[in-house]
Amino acid sequence: MARLYHFMLCPFSRRIRLALGEYGVDAELIEERPWSLTRALLKLNPSGALPVFIDDDRVTVAGIEAVSEYLEETRAGTGGAATLLGATPVERAEVRRLVAWFDVTFHRDVSRNVIVENIERRFAAPEHGGGAPNMQAVRNSLSHIRGHLDYIGRLVEERRWLAGDRLSHADLAAAAHLSCLDYLGDVPWSASDGAKGWYARIKSHPCFRPLLADQIRGMPPPRSYADLEF
Amino acid sequence: MARLYHFMLCPFSRRIRLALGEYGVDAELIEERPWSLTRALLKLNPSGALPVFIDDDRVTVAGIEAVSEYLEETRAGTGGAATLLGATPVERAEVRRLVAWFDVTFHRDVSRNVIVENIERRFAAPEHGGGAPNMQAVRNSLSHIRGHLDYIGRLVEERRWLAGDRLSHADLAAAAHLSCLDYLGDVPWSASDGAKGWYARIKSHPCFRPLLADQIRGMPPPRSYADLEF
Repeated sequence: MARLYHFMLCPFSRRIRLALGEYGVDAELIEERPWSLTRALLKLNPSGALPVFIDDDRVTVAGIEAVSEYLEETRAGTGGAATLLGATPVERAEVRRLVAWFDVTFHRDVSRNVIVENIERRFAAPEHGGGAPNMQAVRNSLSHIRGHLDYIGRLVEERRWLAGDRLSHADLAAAAHLSCLDYLGDVPWSASDGAKGWYARIKSHPCFRPLLADQIRGMPPPRSYADLEF
Repeated sequence: MARLYHFMLCPFSRRIRLALGEYGVDAELIEERPWSLTRALLKLNPSGALPVFIDDDRVTVAGIEAVSEYLEETRAGTGGAATLLGATPVERAEVRRLVAWFDVTFHRDVSRNVIVENIERRFAAPEHGGGAPNMQAVRNSLSHIRGHLDYIGRLVEERRWLAGDRLSHADLAAAAHLSCLDYLGDVPWSASDGAKGWYARIKSHPCFRPLLADQIRGMPPPRSYADLEF
């Protein structure tokens, strides 16, 4: 069976867990903690970036872009799995533009700080950056979230999914980041009906179920996190 | 003719300029300044990320991952241009792993700070972050560069190019970042014979020539920058 090295509240790992569900790939999940990676993980990916996917034939694929493109190349169109990248170069360009919107811009402006301050500071040893969270940094980052919800809302006014008519890695990337913040109770869904409606749709997909069952020990999510009518 | 919105010392823009040369694509270059983007650019890519490629047929492709994959999909294998991503999913996974090494890890640890402090602080207006560069931040970032040169050196001990037998986006990404720092005279090439030999090889490729002619007004590069025997 394939294996995925991941961390529950790593948005890149979450995107691949969602993609595995959509492509219909079973994988054993192996938990890593980004603030104290195992030697096994660093051997698989010297940069330390999660996730890392080990295919059935032991091919190692490291890092979010490598894994997402590898799964599309090897799993889309097989066994009934649809493409998650798009059918033409132009469609794929739009999916990849929006993936970068969330994996680069949203991550830099919002999710990275919120996750580092709330999770890594809490669980890491002091020598690995543990300590009191910088709540001002968290508030600064969260102040940017409404602009992104607005953007999602504007996209789904004109499209069924973020990049077009079909679910794509753009939706999975956006949902992966937002679901990490939602686990922490930090998404003001009432700020955008459009974004909320889009998230309700993707949250009810079967691929989302494993994520909704996630529980970090000593840090349970709010009840709304797993509620399909949040 | 195709167009590329770029900035001379943006490593992502540089990678695409190199790729255009390798794929044999002519494009008009339109200069943008990351610290004061034009409205035209923000209309093409609301996230503001460079580069943006406008194809002959006016298709807009925004952001480094979207542009690099789009060019591979539409230009590799045409008119004699070879693939820059690899021939199999496994080869492409290795190329994309190394691209992330430079575009994510090297950028975060080294090139972003050096470029922001040396270029953006100098040219940006105070309201856009201009001012005195933080030279301590520059020194901290540059202290990480030797580890990366070592890594390049180890890779080319066993491979002709970074990801395998053929030149790929991994080489272009690494060379794009390092050439920005080289423009500033900040690469200690004597630290790794292997990395220096690899850079000498890629620097002498025809695709590199336009980059070696770059001149930022009021900030010329050191003589070694354009010298093939640096």
